[in-house]
Amino acid sequence: MSDFPRFTDLIKGLPATVPFVGPEALERSRGFPIRARIGANESGFGPAPSVIEAIRQHADAVWHYSDPEHFSIKQALADHLGCAAQNVVVGEGVDGLLGMTVRLVVSPGTTVVTSLGGYPTFNYHVDGFGGQRVNVPYAGDREDLDALLDAVKKNDASLVYFANPDNPMGSHWHEDEVARFIDALPETCMMVLDEAYCECGPAEAFSDIARFLDRPNVLRFRTFSKAYGLAGARVGYAIGAPETIAAFDKIRNHFGMPVLSVVAAEAALADQAYLQAVVGRIRESRDEIGRIARENGLEPLPSATNFVAIDCGRDGAYARAIVDGLGAHGVFIRMPGVAPLNRCIRVSTGPSADMTLFAEALPVVLGDIG
Amino acid sequence: MSDFPRFTDLIKGLPATVPFVGPEALERSRGFPIRARIGANESGFGPAPSVIEAIRQHADAVWHYSDPEHFSIKQALADHLGCAAQNVVVGEGVDGLLGMTVRLVVSPGTTVVTSLGGYPTFNYHVDGFGGQRVNVPYAGDREDLDALLDAVKKNDASLVYFANPDNPMGSHWHEDEVARFIDALPETCMMVLDEAYCECGPAEAFSDIARFLDRPNVLRFRTFSKAYGLAGARVGYAIGAPETIAAFDKIRNHFGMPVLSVVAAEAALADQAYLQAVVGRIRESRDEIGRIARENGLEPLPSATNFVAIDCGRDGAYARAIVDGLGAHGVFIRMPGVAPLNRCIRVSTGPSADMTLFAEALPVVLGDIG
Repeated sequence: MSDFPRFTDLIKGLPATVPFVGPEALERSRGFPIRARIGANESGFGPAPSVIEAIRQHADAVWHYSDPEHFSIKQALADHLGCAAQNVVVGEGVDGLLGMTVRLVVSPGTTVVTSLGGYPTFNYHVDGFGGQRVNVPYAGDREDLDALLDAVKKNDASLVYFANPDNPMGSHWHEDEVARFIDALPETCMMVLDEAYCECGPAEAFSDIARFLDRPNVLRFRTFSKAYGLAGARVGYAIGAPETIAAFDKIRNHFGMPVLSVVAAEAALADQAYLQAVVGRIRESRDEIGRIARENGLEPLPSATNFVAIDCGRDGAYARAIVDGLGAHGVFIRMPGVAPLNRCIRVSTGPSADMTLFAEALPVVLGDIG
Repeated sequence: MSDFPRFTDLIKGLPATVPFVGPEALERSRGFPIRARIGANESGFGPAPSVIEAIRQHADAVWHYSDPEHFSIKQALADHLGCAAQNVVVGEGVDGLLGMTVRLVVSPGTTVVTSLGGYPTFNYHVDGFGGQRVNVPYAGDREDLDALLDAVKKNDASLVYFANPDNPMGSHWHEDEVARFIDALPETCMMVLDEAYCECGPAEAFSDIARFLDRPNVLRFRTFSKAYGLAGARVGYAIGAPETIAAFDKIRNHFGMPVLSVVAAEAALADQAYLQAVVGRIRESRDEIGRIARENGLEPLPSATNFVAIDCGRDGAYARAIVDGLGAHGVFIRMPGVAPLNRCIRVSTGPSADMTLFAEALPVVLGDIG
């Protein structure tokens, strides 16, 4: 059978690769069950019990669409953030919002700047809309703000991606450095400031929400998938100037948000006491991952997120062997995709049972690899 | 504040209009609560109790992403439909899948054929990707298959939309007529065969799933939002040739499906006894809507869906007055958007409490309008 001949040229040119292989696919292909799911920076601590209860209570609301204007959750987010509802757009996870943001700005040939080894799903969207990516190497295991700015200016880029704290290394920049970057950024370049891990990081990394709301070229992205423990609900939001936020209404799926996901996110936002408690557990788990790494002669990097990058001291092949070896023990972790970041493995924080499995498997795997 | 200057030309040219205003927005703008929600072709009968129970039982799975390959639900659908998993793609509702389909085929200037008054969300996606729409009038309150085919050929269209049964009129074509259309369709034109209401219609309307699986230019769309009662879960699927289905993997959000939505859809699919029962209730409700219409001197059209279009015998302004008048009584319904279809109102089937509210309000509204 021949392919449909009229997929767009852009589509015809896209690879069939995917940004991430899921743990379920690893289970199927390799035949062993995942016992510790600490590879996708989900939160094994889960959402608040109040969130689970809210889902159960509202389960029978699943017959109807959710409010396409997201009135209630946008207002709740605005109240929480200290901005107006018009500064907020809610979407199907940060992934979905990133795809829309790229679609708003990128047509074939548009230049986009990001970090080499940065978030693969952002790259997937840029490639999917025909953007030309300029990939700026990390410096000192951090995204290189100065080099990103240089690349934007040199290439007259229309879109730049920067994560603070960053994934996959877990590093962060002080808010003043980020603000300096934004102040120097040409207004013709839209900044994606991905703050997916903001609840886990130090306060010094995050400017007041009000600070950039008068900039039409700054969008800050946050999510319920990480510290709030709702990765499976797919609820993210972006914060920005009203005119920029309004642009999403031109292309988003207005009835796209699942009703129970909205219920879950609203309940999660209302339970800040749980969030604070779980952030404490994330910190403890980071320390525990660090201890386990050091006990095995590996070097944990500082983390402002819900995961820890561990420098394994050799090359990508060695780190890959560790990832695969842990997988064979049912411990699902991931690793950065490019050198020199790929000397590291990346381990998500999680409950002590997960940490125990990791601690048990790691020395065995390292011994096996030699 | 000025707008961001580098939204794409396509985005700059898009209107801020939305396909549908939600009932929640009507409540907010008009200040009365919706008492009967029978306007969006959701199912007020709800999903099976087994589905609600499955959501409650799995609520605590919401902390993790769902399987990005959709292995389990695709296999379940394939078993149910009698095809292979490679013939199925699962997405965030038919709306989401339609958006992806348009993106696969349409770049600025691509010609797309659809029916004048057909599904607005499809048009929204076509416009959003810069397609040139050719809108073919209905004939006899049905989509006009011959005229659609003529329009495809005359305009060398790359994409054609056809819903069977159709929305907003509820009509249907025999499967042989649809097959004749497909046989005559140029292989350079992708057919969107929207069968969202298939569970509610007569068997004669639907070809065996196997029939078009060797056609790279045919995609059939189905959903859990209508008869299965899961509009709020956002789970749709498309069925087609493996090469065509594989194209979705190049652009879809691989981690986009909410985990509880997948749980709900799998549970719904497993409870075919409930589906059969609810389809019986939908039929009874269609009859009830017809009775109410006739008692008020209006003419219900035959329906193969979970709604009934009612011919109000005058123009669009009159039908609009009925829709607005019913809204003031807390009865949310909708109506077709263009003449001559807009002489009708469109009422979704629902439980007897909804029907009672409709039956009580309609004569009052008609009397008020005069």
